[in-house]
Amino acid sequence: MTARILDGAALAKTIRMELQPRVASVASRLGRPPGLGIVLVGDDPASEVYVRNKLKAAAEIGLRADLERLPATATLDDTLALVERLNGSPVHDGILVQSPLPAAMGPTAEQRVFDAIDPAKDVDGFSAENVGRLVQKRRAFVACTPQGIVELLDRFQIPIAGARAVIIGRSDIVGKPLALLLLHRDATVTICHSKTRDLASVAASADLLIAAIGRPAFVTAAFVRAGATVIDVGVNSVSDSALVQSVFGPDDPKRGQFERRGSILMGDVHPDVAQVAGALTPVPGGVGPMTIAMLLANTIHAAEGEWRLD
Amino acid sequence: MTARILDGAALAKTIRMELQPRVASVASRLGRPPGLGIVLVGDDPASEVYVRNKLKAAAEIGLRADLERLPATATLDDTLALVERLNGSPVHDGILVQSPLPAAMGPTAEQRVFDAIDPAKDVDGFSAENVGRLVQKRRAFVACTPQGIVELLDRFQIPIAGARAVIIGRSDIVGKPLALLLLHRDATVTICHSKTRDLASVAASADLLIAAIGRPAFVTAAFVRAGATVIDVGVNSVSDSALVQSVFGPDDPKRGQFERRGSILMGDVHPDVAQVAGALTPVPGGVGPMTIAMLLANTIHAAEGEWRLD
Repeated sequence: MTARILDGAALAKTIRMELQPRVASVASRLGRPPGLGIVLVGDDPASEVYVRNKLKAAAEIGLRADLERLPATATLDDTLALVERLNGSPVHDGILVQSPLPAAMGPTAEQRVFDAIDPAKDVDGFSAENVGRLVQKRRAFVACTPQGIVELLDRFQIPIAGARAVIIGRSDIVGKPLALLLLHRDATVTICHSKTRDLASVAASADLLIAAIGRPAFVTAAFVRAGATVIDVGVNSVSDSALVQSVFGPDDPKRGQFERRGSILMGDVHPDVAQVAGALTPVPGGVGPMTIAMLLANTIHAAEGEWRLD
Repeated sequence: MTARILDGAALAKTIRMELQPRVASVASRLGRPPGLGIVLVGDDPASEVYVRNKLKAAAEIGLRADLERLPATATLDDTLALVERLNGSPVHDGILVQSPLPAAMGPTAEQRVFDAIDPAKDVDGFSAENVGRLVQKRRAFVACTPQGIVELLDRFQIPIAGARAVIIGRSDIVGKPLALLLLHRDATVTICHSKTRDLASVAASADLLIAAIGRPAFVTAAFVRAGATVIDVGVNSVSDSALVQSVFGPDDPKRGQFERRGSILMGDVHPDVAQVAGALTPVPGGVGPMTIAMLLANTIHAAEGEWRLD
């Protein structure tokens, strides 16, 4: 059997098109489009790529997205002041602070900046307030990656209620919020991590297996029950040619890509899983585009002004 | 084999004695003991018992606890005004609003009142802010029952890291926060609920099984792996004599108790589990007293003023 490939890129495009009339409706009601302020501090190359993708996706549907840059030498106070300005801005409904902040700001800077965002503009859902509201099953902004995964499952009609879901990875931005979302949708949820014993056999009990650990090709066929749905959240840049050769067969076009570029994007899921799983998200083109679509949806939601209903 | 009984009542007493010097230290530094304001609206009989137990435990260690009563006819605004007064009170470090509020206040009243509590005085940990901080593994007030369960496991030296923990029940006050606490202590955590398929077999995979569903004697020996630790969070008042007779053998003194009183407290765990489990908390005298000890500890912590460090 060969897994059905869940094309997140195509689905995200469909969703973006669906969002367009909501953008237009906000624009006609408010006299301006929904607006997103993106804070980028420093010049991390990966962040530049992520931010560019977000700006491009926003522009495509007529959503205003402003990149607010600070130099790598900016202080925490500079960053907080910028967030404060965006909190007060009448044209920005959503605020996103691109992670990571420069290491020089210290280990707690990121959370302090996230907490400074007005919860009603916190479209990434990283403030304690929004996270707590998620736990309590209240209206909340929810981190875009787990939200995108649930949307993807729904659109591909993969049942969540009653499913055994196993999440490998317990991060604040994927594993934990996803566990809560799936739990609230009546899945039976197990969260695994580096200290889990017999990880492969726990994973193999899943109808729905989510790999979000950031270890290239870590989840092999031995982790997967035949017919399970596998969601690959990993986006690992791999430049180790031995690893590429061990993971991709001699005829795989990925080898050629690697030869040309010197590095390649690899998910957390080994390609062999496609022979066992019932459905599988590719990397790239799976969860990533869905994350950006949810960011746009959250910004529109913020502009619609109906966030705080309870 | 017969399970070791984890005596929560005796342990809670030990903990309360350990808290006494901290109460004295706060009193000598601030010129007043730590103070807890307990808001009780209406006259629910079970709430009266709970509140009385809390007041008694506080008094025993010299902690000030004031019962602030409102009549059953009080409005949400009355209750919010009382919380506001306690927020501003210089002698109250902790605030607890006894659940449930009168049904007439509406379904969202409770959360609105919890949210109105100053997060630095929210010793029950029910505000979105504290719940979010728990998820993010930051300093937070954590709901007293799950906190008491972790404390009990630690004191009885039952390992959490690496254990497979299965929680039956996904409430905001037990199941979900406990899942997070155990996850942060490196357990592999599964949350089950009424929609879980093959519940008994999932439960039987646990080293650590927590029953928090509010269904008397629901968790039978079939749910328990030999030698597992079983934590019984249920406190069910049972007045059905057929149920009592089916659960307790003819020689069990509980039958006599039931005859005298017409009702009996029964946990979520069937007494047969004692023949399979390695360790088991009794009901009453297990988790309940630990919950109150954690409430006192949280109030002292609030009085020590070190809550908001990050």
